[in-house]
Amino acid sequence: MTNTVGQSTTARANANIAFIKYWGNIDDALRLPANPSISMNLDGLFTQTTVTWREDLAADQLTLNGQSAEAQALRRVSTHLDALRQRLAISGYAAVESANNFPTGAGIASSAAAFAALTIAAAAAAGLTLSERELTTLARLGSGSASRSVPSGFVEWYSGATHEQSFAESIASPDHWDIVDVVAIVSHAHKTTGSSEGHQSANSSDYQTARVAGASDRLVVCKRALLERDFATFAEIVEHDSNMMHAVMMTSRPPLFYWQPATLGVMEHVRQWRADGLRVCYTLDAGPNVHCICVRGDMEQVREGLKQLSDVQDVLVANPGGPAQII
Amino acid sequence: MTNTVGQSTTARANANIAFIKYWGNIDDALRLPANPSISMNLDGLFTQTTVTWREDLAADQLTLNGQSAEAQALRRVSTHLDALRQRLAISGYAAVESANNFPTGAGIASSAAAFAALTIAAAAAAGLTLSERELTTLARLGSGSASRSVPSGFVEWYSGATHEQSFAESIASPDHWDIVDVVAIVSHAHKTTGSSEGHQSANSSDYQTARVAGASDRLVVCKRALLERDFATFAEIVEHDSNMMHAVMMTSRPPLFYWQPATLGVMEHVRQWRADGLRVCYTLDAGPNVHCICVRGDMEQVREGLKQLSDVQDVLVANPGGPAQII
Repeated sequence: MTNTVGQSTTARANANIAFIKYWGNIDDALRLPANPSISMNLDGLFTQTTVTWREDLAADQLTLNGQSAEAQALRRVSTHLDALRQRLAISGYAAVESANNFPTGAGIASSAAAFAALTIAAAAAAGLTLSERELTTLARLGSGSASRSVPSGFVEWYSGATHEQSFAESIASPDHWDIVDVVAIVSHAHKTTGSSEGHQSANSSDYQTARVAGASDRLVVCKRALLERDFATFAEIVEHDSNMMHAVMMTSRPPLFYWQPATLGVMEHVRQWRADGLRVCYTLDAGPNVHCICVRGDMEQVREGLKQLSDVQDVLVANPGGPAQII
Repeated sequence: MTNTVGQSTTARANANIAFIKYWGNIDDALRLPANPSISMNLDGLFTQTTVTWREDLAADQLTLNGQSAEAQALRRVSTHLDALRQRLAISGYAAVESANNFPTGAGIASSAAAFAALTIAAAAAAGLTLSERELTTLARLGSGSASRSVPSGFVEWYSGATHEQSFAESIASPDHWDIVDVVAIVSHAHKTTGSSEGHQSANSSDYQTARVAGASDRLVVCKRALLERDFATFAEIVEHDSNMMHAVMMTSRPPLFYWQPATLGVMEHVRQWRADGLRVCYTLDAGPNVHCICVRGDMEQVREGLKQLSDVQDVLVANPGGPAQII
C-alpha cells in the first residue's frame, strides 16, 4: 500500500494548444495517438484539482467548479482513477475537487488541463514520486492531450506502440519564443461531440490515413520553425495542419463540423491580416473558438482586430505556460 | 473547308449542378477528369451564345452580356475556338455574343453553360452535324463540366484515358425525379480563384488521391439513389461528396476557401432541416453559394427558410433541365 490516506494534494495544470494536431488513436483504450503532436502550454488558463484518497468512501466523488459533477463526468474521472489505482497500486476511493478558470468544452482543451492536474494530484496524494515522463503517460490515459499539459512550455508528444513509449516532453521552455495565443471566443456553448467520441470517428474519414501519413513531416517542419523562431514557416504549417484535421472531421461519417460561421469569419480575417503583414496565424481544436497565435509585437493589433468583429464574444490572451505542478 | 461563312447560329445551354463532384484532371490540357461525376441540368439558368464564322476578321471577337469582353475571357474562348478550328477543320475567326441570365463566377457553373453553348453554336454555325457524344467531348475541352451541360436531365460524365473516352450522357430525363435546386445566393462577387486554376491545384492536397480513389464508389451509390428516387441515401452521399471536395480545396497548398461564413450557416440549417424531416441536402461548387437540393413537396419550406436567413441575399429555384440546343 502506497497510500497516504486522508492527505489532500492540489495540482494545477495549464491548458495547451496544439500546433500539430492529435486526432485519432491506434489504441482507443490506451489513447495511443495515430500521430505525434506539438503544443504550447497556455499560461493562466488552468485547471486546479485537489485529490484526497479516502478509505471511508464507497465510490469516487467529484466536484466541478464548486458543484457536484454530472454522472458522465464522474464516470470518466472514475475510469481514470481506476487506471491509476491499478497501475500505481493505490487503494480506496478519491474525493476530487476540480475547477477551471476558462470556459469548458469550447475548443480550449479543458480535458487536457483537467486530466494532467488530476493525475499529478492523485499520484502525489498517494505519496508517490513519479518521473515527469511517467506522469505524461498516465495523464494520457485520461485524455490524450493531457500528456502535453504536464511538461513545460513547448511540448512534443510522441506516438508510440506501447503505453511507455507514448510520452511527452518539453522541446523548449516558455521563454524560448515570445509568441502568444489570442483566443477568439465565438461560442461559450459546450460542443455536441466530445473529443473522445470524435477521436473514435477519425478512421471513418477516407482522409485520416493521409493525414496521419503526413503528420511526422509536418511536425518536423513545425518543430524546426519553432526552434528557429521562423514565424512565416510556422504560420503556414500550423494553419495547414489545423485545416487537415478539420477536413478529416468534416469528411467523417457522420461528419463533425466544429466550425461555426463566425469561426470561418475569424479564420478569413487572420489570413488577411497575415497577408497585410501581421505575424499571426490560426489553429482550432475540436471546438469553434479560434486560437490566433501571434508574435507579441503584433498582439495588440490582433486583439483589437478581433474585438471589432461582431461575432467575437470575448478575447483571451495566454503566454507560453509552465509545467503542471503541485501547489 | 466545312464552313458556312457568315451564317449566325444561336445555342442555349443550362448550367448544371454536380452531385458527385469533378475536381482535378489527369490531363489539364484535355481536361480529362481525375474521376467521373454526375450532375443535373438547371432549367432556366442558361447561357445563350451566338457564333458567326467570318473570313474578314483578324481575330476572334467576344461580347459578354452586351459588353466587349475582357482580354482574359476572350483568350479562354479563343483557345477553345482554336481547338474547334483544329479538330473540326474550320477556318476563319468567330464573332461570339454570349449572355448569362444568372450571376457569373459565384458557384453556379457559368463556364459549364458557356462552353456547352459555345461549342454547339460554333459547330452548327460551321455547318457541322455532330453526335451528342462528340459535342460533349468538345465542350469538355473548354470547361470540364461543360460536357455535362450538353445532354438532357441527369447526366454522367465518364472519366477516361483519351479525349474520345471522356464523354457525358444522360442517365435519366428531366422528368425522372421531381427534385429542385434551391440556390441560396450569399455572394454575387466573382470568385478569386477560378475553377481552371483550382483544378490544377487539386494534387497539392494530400487528400486528392483518397478523394479520387473513392469517387467511383460514391458515384455508384449516388446514381442508384437517383435512379431509385431514394432521397435519404442521395442526400447523405451528395453532402459527403461536396464535403470531400471542399476538404481537398482547403488542404491544397496554398489553400482554397470557397466557403464564406454565410455558406457554413446555410449548410448548418440544411442539415438541421433534414434532421427535422425536410427532404433537402446541400452541395457546393467552387463558390460560396449553396445549392439546396430538395424534393418539390418540401421546396416552399426550404425557400421560405432560406429567405429568413439574413445572410442570404437571393434565392433562385431551378428544375431539372433539358439538353443544350440550337434555337
